[in-house]
Amino acid sequence: MFDFTYYAPTKVVFGRGGEAKAGQLAAAAGATKALVCYGGGSVVRSGVLDRVLASLDEAGVAHAELGGAQPNPRLSLVYEGIEKARAEGVDFLLAVGGGSVIDTAKAIAYGLANEGDVWDFYLKKRTPEACLPVGVVLTIAAAGSEMSNSSVISNEDTQEKRSCNNDLARPRFAIMNPELTMTLPDYQTACGNTDIMMHTMERYFTQGGNMELTDGIAEALLRTVRDNALILVEHPDDYDARAEVMWASSVSHNGLTGCGNDGGDFVSHNLEHQMGALYDVAHGAGLAAVWGSWARYVMDGCLDRFVKYAVNVWGVDASGKTDEEIALAGIEATEDFYRKIGMPTNMRELGIEPTDEEIDRMVQMVMDTNPKGRGSAKHLYADDFRAIYQMAR
Amino acid sequence: MFDFTYYAPTKVVFGRGGEAKAGQLAAAAGATKALVCYGGGSVVRSGVLDRVLASLDEAGVAHAELGGAQPNPRLSLVYEGIEKARAEGVDFLLAVGGGSVIDTAKAIAYGLANEGDVWDFYLKKRTPEACLPVGVVLTIAAAGSEMSNSSVISNEDTQEKRSCNNDLARPRFAIMNPELTMTLPDYQTACGNTDIMMHTMERYFTQGGNMELTDGIAEALLRTVRDNALILVEHPDDYDARAEVMWASSVSHNGLTGCGNDGGDFVSHNLEHQMGALYDVAHGAGLAAVWGSWARYVMDGCLDRFVKYAVNVWGVDASGKTDEEIALAGIEATEDFYRKIGMPTNMRELGIEPTDEEIDRMVQMVMDTNPKGRGSAKHLYADDFRAIYQMAR
Repeated sequence: MFDFTYYAPTKVVFGRGGEAKAGQLAAAAGATKALVCYGGGSVVRSGVLDRVLASLDEAGVAHAELGGAQPNPRLSLVYEGIEKARAEGVDFLLAVGGGSVIDTAKAIAYGLANEGDVWDFYLKKRTPEACLPVGVVLTIAAAGSEMSNSSVISNEDTQEKRSCNNDLARPRFAIMNPELTMTLPDYQTACGNTDIMMHTMERYFTQGGNMELTDGIAEALLRTVRDNALILVEHPDDYDARAEVMWASSVSHNGLTGCGNDGGDFVSHNLEHQMGALYDVAHGAGLAAVWGSWARYVMDGCLDRFVKYAVNVWGVDASGKTDEEIALAGIEATEDFYRKIGMPTNMRELGIEPTDEEIDRMVQMVMDTNPKGRGSAKHLYADDFRAIYQMAR
Repeated sequence: MFDFTYYAPTKVVFGRGGEAKAGQLAAAAGATKALVCYGGGSVVRSGVLDRVLASLDEAGVAHAELGGAQPNPRLSLVYEGIEKARAEGVDFLLAVGGGSVIDTAKAIAYGLANEGDVWDFYLKKRTPEACLPVGVVLTIAAAGSEMSNSSVISNEDTQEKRSCNNDLARPRFAIMNPELTMTLPDYQTACGNTDIMMHTMERYFTQGGNMELTDGIAEALLRTVRDNALILVEHPDDYDARAEVMWASSVSHNGLTGCGNDGGDFVSHNLEHQMGALYDVAHGAGLAAVWGSWARYVMDGCLDRFVKYAVNVWGVDASGKTDEEIALAGIEATEDFYRKIGMPTNMRELGIEPTDEEIDRMVQMVMDTNPKGRGSAKHLYADDFRAIYQMAR
């Protein structure tokens, strides 16, 4: 068991109609003027944005708006947001959307509170010393950014997708109304559920003691998301199922499922980030496309964990099987699940077929951010990353 | 499923030697002079207090001391602490101990930040509007007060034991070093583990939808504490077992195991509080003495929950049994566990034999704080409370 720090100060307000509380929560967090960030037109069409703005008006919080955040959120929009926020004199960021919108808001909040180029923080050239407060009205259950310390931004000029992880950026509050997620396209729902599970799986497949309580919580979360993801394939408007995965999205990435572990593996995320930078694939689908290959490649590195996962999450019958067979059955069960919810299990199914040169480029990008290699389930280097990409092709 | 708010902003610093970080964490929380609260001589004898004071010195945080907090912490010490803190000009409370010390520190923090008599907040005559910041160096895993919004104080003049629950009092940080709990007497360890489990059980036996993720986390926590409580009977110096129950103590009472439920039942706690006020019994042992009687009395009110508890926590084989039989088997398994860790299953085993008049007095005290009755598993009134006390006698 490793020592750990757990810090998840975000106030969660969960339930129907929660977006009407955005104003009072922002005011309580000290906001006098908020930059309201959102993505495409869906929050406009659904009326959610209007309800949020009305709530801000009612609470006496002035506001400006910044739309246009996309999946794999762009650095250029971050720069635009910083400029606009400075001109408008905002002191609070309110993200109305999912991970891309929240990560954009966090990046703007860093940019406003620190001197110099905000991209430096994502390149790990500098560490942010401050961050404007961020609040969230969540409309997509996936990234967990509503409680996490993480922000992932893509630099479209350099095709780099990089993260900045700092507790300063943990949102002050997160309003979660499961009803707001009911109109998501099925594919996006499935991507979200894959991402939610992956944030816990990345923390689960690690070496170094582990904690029974953390494992038990992690396994319960994975079973819950699996069961409810399957319900949502048939019944996308099931409130309880939407609520289960929405709350799971936060719990899965706020640090709780990693307590006592060694910080997580996160190689699957790293491999996907490069795919996302080059091909602009949906993050959850990219994770599903690469995970099975990663798992088969590393499973001998922490076989006991893969066995535990197979039995406790997927109910694999261990009798008469070797540990390798049990572990493989767990990986196959995961891939069966991906197919059932419409997720790919390799890059071809994802719709991309990288050449050897493109794989080399992605490997180089992984190594750029991890010059000493990466991984906890098994520590991997350039040749390993290449082999996994080739397996997943 | 009910709407909920989840707010657990305490920064947890978990691992060996953590007490040496008390100074820097207090300074980061804005402390310039801390009142260091502790209980008996054990933190003095063990050297923990000296290490904490040295850490404050190193961080440039001045300090005064207040020892003498006891189980069922006394209002008189709270008054003394407020007076001392005012005289010393402290702006931070640092609790070095378990629930009694933390609850004393929270009460002093309320008293310093508000006008009037602090006991008013416990009598629910007024609501606190502010609270001085509180930090914790935890030495006993039990109450969960290190992350909770709760403070329980006993008024020795009126023999009332009352709680004040307010998010203002959630500690800024909690340092948890499992090694510090290794020297606890076995009885106190068992009491702590009973209390830890009870905080989740009080939230589990409720009516109203419930959330699968919450149930899964709750069941994992109960299994983990049970398994490690049994290990600690034989091996009180097992670091990993101490760590499991220590982290569970916080998770069990910070709100996580109640998300989506209806706020919890907490009748067992209420029944015990009156026993604690009259007889000064150890809180965990008091809970164990009354829980089985409460459970048998209310189980028909939420039978499905008792069945789920029996199967998922205690592994009761449900085949060929009625729901009542399964539920009873779960209750009996819980009581078997209490016996194995040296806890009582009725008041006689606890060492008290209340007369009918004393039971009437305790019932009256329950009703004083709950004039409309209380309970979620089953809503109970005076006659019900009396019947449960009599069953538990």
